[in-house]
Amino acid sequence: MMKISPQTQASVLVESLPYIQKFHNEIVVVKYGGSAMSNRALKEGVLRDIALMKYVGINPVIVHGGGPEITEMMQRYGKKATFIDGLRVTDEKTMELTEMVLSGKIASEIVALLGRNGVKSIGISGKDGQTILAKAKSPDLGLVGTVETIQSDLLMLLIREGYVPVISPIGVDEQGARYNINADEVAGALAAALGAKKLVLMTDVSGVLRDASDPNTRISEIKIDEVDHYIKQGIVTGGMIPKVGCCVSAIEKGVQRCHIIDGKKSHAILLEIFTDDGVGTLIQK
Amino acid sequence: MMKISPQTQASVLVESLPYIQKFHNEIVVVKYGGSAMSNRALKEGVLRDIALMKYVGINPVIVHGGGPEITEMMQRYGKKATFIDGLRVTDEKTMELTEMVLSGKIASEIVALLGRNGVKSIGISGKDGQTILAKAKSPDLGLVGTVETIQSDLLMLLIREGYVPVISPIGVDEQGARYNINADEVAGALAAALGAKKLVLMTDVSGVLRDASDPNTRISEIKIDEVDHYIKQGIVTGGMIPKVGCCVSAIEKGVQRCHIIDGKKSHAILLEIFTDDGVGTLIQK
Amino acid sequence: MMKISPQTQASVLVESLPYIQKFHNEIVVVKYGGSAMSNRALKEGVLRDIALMKYVGINPVIVHGGGPEITEMMQRYGKKATFIDGLRVTDEKTMELTEMVLSGKIASEIVALLGRNGVKSIGISGKDGQTILAKAKSPDLGLVGTVETIQSDLLMLLIREGYVPVISPIGVDEQGARYNINADEVAGALAAALGAKKLVLMTDVSGVLRDASDPNTRISEIKIDEVDHYIKQGIVTGGMIPKVGCCVSAIEKGVQRCHIIDGKKSHAILLEIFTDDGVGTLIQK
Amino acid sequence: MMKISPQTQASVLVESLPYIQKFHNEIVVVKYGGSAMSNRALKEGVLRDIALMKYVGINPVIVHGGGPEITEMMQRYGKKATFIDGLRVTDEKTMELTEMVLSGKIASEIVALLGRNGVKSIGISGKDGQTILAKAKSPDLGLVGTVETIQSDLLMLLIREGYVPVISPIGVDEQGARYNINADEVAGALAAALGAKKLVLMTDVSGVLRDASDPNTRISEIKIDEVDHYIKQGIVTGGMIPKVGCCVSAIEKGVQRCHIIDGKKSHAILLEIFTDDGVGTLIQK
Amino acid sequence: MMKISPQTQASVLVESLPYIQKFHNEIVVVKYGGSAMSNRALKEGVLRDIALMKYVGINPVIVHGGGPEITEMMQRYGKKATFIDGLRVTDEKTMELTEMVLSGKIASEIVALLGRNGVKSIGISGKDGQTILAKAKSPDLGLVGTVETIQSDLLMLLIREGYVPVISPIGVDEQGARYNINADEVAGALAAALGAKKLVLMTDVSGVLRDASDPNTRISEIKIDEVDHYIKQGIVTGGMIPKVGCCVSAIEKGVQRCHIIDGKKSHAILLEIFTDDGVGTLIQK
Amino acid sequence: MMKISPQTQASVLVESLPYIQKFHNEIVVVKYGGSAMSNRALKEGVLRDIALMKYVGINPVIVHGGGPEITEMMQRYGKKATFIDGLRVTDEKTMELTEMVLSGKIASEIVALLGRNGVKSIGISGKDGQTILAKAKSPDLGLVGTVETIQSDLLMLLIREGYVPVISPIGVDEQGARYNINADEVAGALAAALGAKKLVLMTDVSGVLRDASDPNTRISEIKIDEVDHYIKQGIVTGGMIPKVGCCVSAIEKGVQRCHIIDGKKSHAILLEIFTDDGVGTLIQK
Repeated sequence: MMKISPQTQASVLVESLPYIQKFHNEIVVVKYGGSAMSNRALKEGVLRDIALMKYVGINPVIVHGGGPEITEMMQRYGKKATFIDGLRVTDEKTMELTEMVLSGKIASEIVALLGRNGVKSIGISGKDGQTILAKAKSPDLGLVGTVETIQSDLLMLLIREGYVPVISPIGVDEQGARYNINADEVAGALAAALGAKKLVLMTDVSGVLRDASDPNTRISEIKIDEVDHYIKQGIVTGGMIPKVGCCVSAIEKGVQRCHIIDGKKSHAILLEIFTDDGVGTLIQK
Repeated sequence: MMKISPQTQASVLVESLPYIQKFHNEIVVVKYGGSAMSNRALKEGVLRDIALMKYVGINPVIVHGGGPEITEMMQRYGKKATFIDGLRVTDEKTMELTEMVLSGKIASEIVALLGRNGVKSIGISGKDGQTILAKAKSPDLGLVGTVETIQSDLLMLLIREGYVPVISPIGVDEQGARYNINADEVAGALAAALGAKKLVLMTDVSGVLRDASDPNTRISEIKIDEVDHYIKQGIVTGGMIPKVGCCVSAIEKGVQRCHIIDGKKSHAILLEIFTDDGVGTLIQK
Repeated sequence: MMKISPQTQASVLVESLPYIQKFHNEIVVVKYGGSAMSNRALKEGVLRDIALMKYVGINPVIVHGGGPEITEMMQRYGKKATFIDGLRVTDEKTMELTEMVLSGKIASEIVALLGRNGVKSIGISGKDGQTILAKAKSPDLGLVGTVETIQSDLLMLLIREGYVPVISPIGVDEQGARYNINADEVAGALAAALGAKKLVLMTDVSGVLRDASDPNTRISEIKIDEVDHYIKQGIVTGGMIPKVGCCVSAIEKGVQRCHIIDGKKSHAILLEIFTDDGVGTLIQK
Repeated sequence: MMKISPQTQASVLVESLPYIQKFHNEIVVVKYGGSAMSNRALKEGVLRDIALMKYVGINPVIVHGGGPEITEMMQRYGKKATFIDGLRVTDEKTMELTEMVLSGKIASEIVALLGRNGVKSIGISGKDGQTILAKAKSPDLGLVGTVETIQSDLLMLLIREGYVPVISPIGVDEQGARYNINADEVAGALAAALGAKKLVLMTDVSGVLRDASDPNTRISEIKIDEVDHYIKQGIVTGGMIPKVGCCVSAIEKGVQRCHIIDGKKSHAILLEIFTDDGVGTLIQK
Repeated sequence: MMKISPQTQASVLVESLPYIQKFHNEIVVVKYGGSAMSNRALKEGVLRDIALMKYVGINPVIVHGGGPEITEMMQRYGKKATFIDGLRVTDEKTMELTEMVLSGKIASEIVALLGRNGVKSIGISGKDGQTILAKAKSPDLGLVGTVETIQSDLLMLLIREGYVPVISPIGVDEQGARYNINADEVAGALAAALGAKKLVLMTDVSGVLRDASDPNTRISEIKIDEVDHYIKQGIVTGGMIPKVGCCVSAIEKGVQRCHIIDGKKSHAILLEIFTDDGVGTLIQK
Repeated sequence: MMKISPQTQASVLVESLPYIQKFHNEIVVVKYGGSAMSNRALKEGVLRDIALMKYVGINPVIVHGGGPEITEMMQRYGKKATFIDGLRVTDEKTMELTEMVLSGKIASEIVALLGRNGVKSIGISGKDGQTILAKAKSPDLGLVGTVETIQSDLLMLLIREGYVPVISPIGVDEQGARYNINADEVAGALAAALGAKKLVLMTDVSGVLRDASDPNTRISEIKIDEVDHYIKQGIVTGGMIPKVGCCVSAIEKGVQRCHIIDGKKSHAILLEIFTDDGVGTLIQK
């Protein structure tokens, strides 16, 4: 970067104008997870990117994951993580540890980093203001939940007043019982409920790959009616199936574009928003 | 209670009217801690009392503590709690565990219980919206902090919109460093910054006692200019000294009345607000 | 009441919470009349009950009657009260006296008593802001009117700003002619127009009685489609017929529950709102 | 008027523009009393004038008197009116009758007439919203009161929302006791409290006269520091002394101009506002 | 005017009340043009009339023409004005001169005169806030445009804040190209888009005349379904055809009444608004 | 620019964050003039830069000049421009031509170009809303004016609603007389009145030069108390003296930084705002 002249810098800024206009005052929901969350440099990079989005007039909403840190803490408590179809079976103790990690550690750290970047933000669990009403997903999974309703008043209030909400994927039911929900699902449901223009799912792969072992086979765009076809062909598989599913569901509820991107790539979100060449897989109508 | 007739119930309600009027639209800061937080029945009682306050037009703000649970978790991580003058020496790992317990467990549980009582509430750490700006208290104490400034915008916004803020006593500085702060101190500073009418510190003793071993020696009222005298006489001692100090400081900044009450006593807060006979020690000008 | 301990008082308050929640921010229209208006102690009791309702977050709207005092004043002016089907035949002079009694005496006194109980209130005649547009009910009745339209702007403004409106049942037409309207009818029309949750008609009997001479035969609940049946059976008779009619009409326009209660019973309104055992006859869908 | 051509009408309108501009959005308090209140044609004229003021952007506030009608009603009740220094000695019964006449009859009639002229108005007694806080004037006078404080919130709310307040000169104290207050005094106190630009006192004489028996000796302007001189000279005498006193007091609290005019003169208020030649006596600094 | 007594003036004002009420808070769009714009005395008269309208609670919106001054300026630049069907063929240079005359001279002068009459006003071209979106009318006419859409936000904002908009009939397209539009057309389109109650087209004739050479043959009212008939009969001809067309179109979009009046007649607009006898031709449903 | 990778673009954006934060929600007044206004490419560049400022949260206010085009138009009308101390002697005809050029041509064109860049803007002369109250500067100069008062209501309203005001430097007095004012003076007065954070004067030189013939001798910063010294030394001379004077005056009224920059330099404003190395001369306290 050293060699970029001020003149060139100014030109780059001016060239970003059409993209800034396009997202002016729009909500963009970012599922933040994977390596971009565990690596300190990546983490600071992502949050600076989000601070920039905020300052140029976009309203980012962050939903974070936290799987590895939950597992680590469970070990500390002598508990073994069990997964069914990629979902962590959650008993009372696991739930308690999950909440502590998500709200008490991860969201909290994101809020502090955004604050350092001059952005007012606030950690929100789905319990706050009963924002995420949930129910159990399956008797076998214990306190694993699925979103029933998003009550968006609190989030809209905070967004309108200039705060970036940092959301831990925890739900609650009317009796006060809490649930551990998949962060992609929460991000998709929020994007739909908040009328977001864009949903970005940050992963550790560069998108949907024709050949999982070769990053150069990335599919840059999938129409939602092609999804079944890709699943049948075995191209969309495993953990990618629910991710793509969240995107399809969000699009059907009015979100315009969903992106599955590689959080390890520097400035991945900005590239998706401020350039014409996306970096991951775009899912749209 | 079985034998109270509906007629009598109605009379009791009407007799509470002058108290309801007195606190109408006023903010009351409650430091919630001690046994009232560890015992399930007491906990539900306190939060129902707070729900009632909210519904009769008072704006409660809760600041919670969490010492014992932090100690327990530290043990799980093989760390030994060290205290200097009653303050927990806090290294990075301790700070991380502290935050997880306070924001991720205790605040979260309070929010869920209030929700079940029909009250919209939200867990707020001092990092959210940089509400509590803090600095290190002393080099020997590590990340133990002391309040520098309360930035009350976020809290006032939430109160105005009908939410009960549940505050974890964690501070942050401009560089994003976090601090563990004494909950009494935070409650006092918030009461002053929010223009609260009353500050209630919930403890495990029935107030300031002339004879610590005899609950019947409770002093029902202390003027702030008598405090030094009581300290010299050895009546206000130990952990009670900083508590009384928080009260004095809050009163000097405009709070009218501070109460040190016994959280184990059922409906202690309501008794302090809705009857003439206080249950603890009142500190005032 | 002497023997109720503060503890018990607090318990009673907490037990009223579900009822307070149910009526939070709702409008309750109270037709205030009969003995509860002529007896000083009852009057003070009723208005203290209404003050309590206001302070716990309910929006009461009072419609008052005033028959006996009008008759008394007419006598003073040497006029004889004539009634057709329970409605006072109203000539110009009678109308003038009626207005003086209703607005200038009764409403005015209620406003003063509420003020003394710390409640901001305001006397409103249907002429103020042309709130009650009316027309003549029948050529034989002179200036006896019936409600045509409620213009609720002024009332909603005052309610929103925290005032309790005290309404004299006088209507006006576009030419400025004034009408004497039955207070039950006005209360019912207002309950419907203001979207009230509940309408309470205060009478001198304990509700609809199977045997008019035996208060123990009170019918505690009538569905609106049973009303005709009760009339045919001669159980709902005389002055009770229009009262029940106002309730039916209000319920058909969206009011949830109407109550005919005995104003002589102490705290009758509170018992209807804050306990499960109603004291009069409930009319609902 | 028949012979005024449309062209001339338009010219007259245009010539009134500077006066309309001068009073745009200003409050003008009118004490309405005397013959202009008892004669039907005059009454309709005055209220049409006030409707015009309202529609061209001025905010009129009416304070009405009612002496003769009170006396008449007292006779009906066999009570004899006694006056000390022009003030009606007021016992409980007199107070009750006074209120009925003022709020229940006179204000009510004014509101109806304004309504017929397309103006939203509302009768307000000093008890409504505890607008006029008062105390007893002298032990000898019974319930004759004097203004202590004007609580102007309710009036400002109503003015802002486009209502013309019609005020009965009745005060109240914190205990709910009511007082009969001189209407000129109330008008002066309101003009000061509401920041009125002008106070107009309507009387039955054409202003302050050098020779009380000769209307041609009207003094068109008095500076407030000349008042004592006029009193000493016996030119300002009797009932005119308190009227001039109200004006002086209002001017000292910021009202710019006070007028004592003859309400029997057709369009007297409009002439005072919309022409350069006043019709009564102007009192100013 | 000398001989009009103050009494008569007041009477005239009161008689205008019903008209003032009728237009209270309504928008009236005035196409201002012809001799009333070139003659200094007429100009001052018209703008004083409009100031009066504003002060009595009407919201006037002015659309001005400017043909003769454009022609004059073109001559200065050695350009010859060419008209096709009464529309000025407009090349780039003509457009530039047109804009300078309309926005830079005529609107600017109107704003100054209104300011002198105490009215806040603001010159608005259709380019400001892209208020008038337009397209070319015909390839032969160059930059002569026709209205596509009125974007009324800016105008409604200014009206709400008390400004009188003075609109130059210039349109713009999304690419920033500007168009010269007929002022009558703009006035009609604005009246429809702003929900005006009345549209007034100021011309140099006294309305639609049966015999163009005889002003006494004015038709005082035309229903919109009679228009075709009048055109076929050769009564509505030449430049009057598009004027009547604008009126018909405005009425079809909700404007109640359109008037074609003679701007040379003194107070013509006021006569149309404040008297029953209109001065021009009324077109309505 | 071709060779800048998307990655680098993203980095440049992120590096601009601190500058965007610094000017968030602040007003920046830009005097736009000189070659940057006459050259089409420069013009489009400047307005795109301003559009970018608007979209990243800054509130730009443009004041434009127009000297050369006024001179050109005067020639067309056979008038000779005469200058005294650099100020154009202005008679009535010159004033008329000046206004036409400034409001009708230059402002109008800027508004259209901003519209094409997605920015809502509006041309404002100092006559609109009587924004710039002015008086004659000197009898010798005719209608050359100087600012007396800025009435900022209209501008603040438009800024708050998201419009970029484009201001022609024309003033008006209470009698409606108009004045031609130096654009630098208007820009300085507006910056002070609007509480701008920064004032940028765009010229045709690269700032204050030690040696006027050598652009490399630019002085990058002048403290306001050094100004006299630079004038005495003959470094600040000629037309630069009033420019520097405007800056000094603006700074004394609270503007933090004023810049004299070369409008011919591409992206000059952005470089001044978004980089640490200014491009012109900074004047500050």
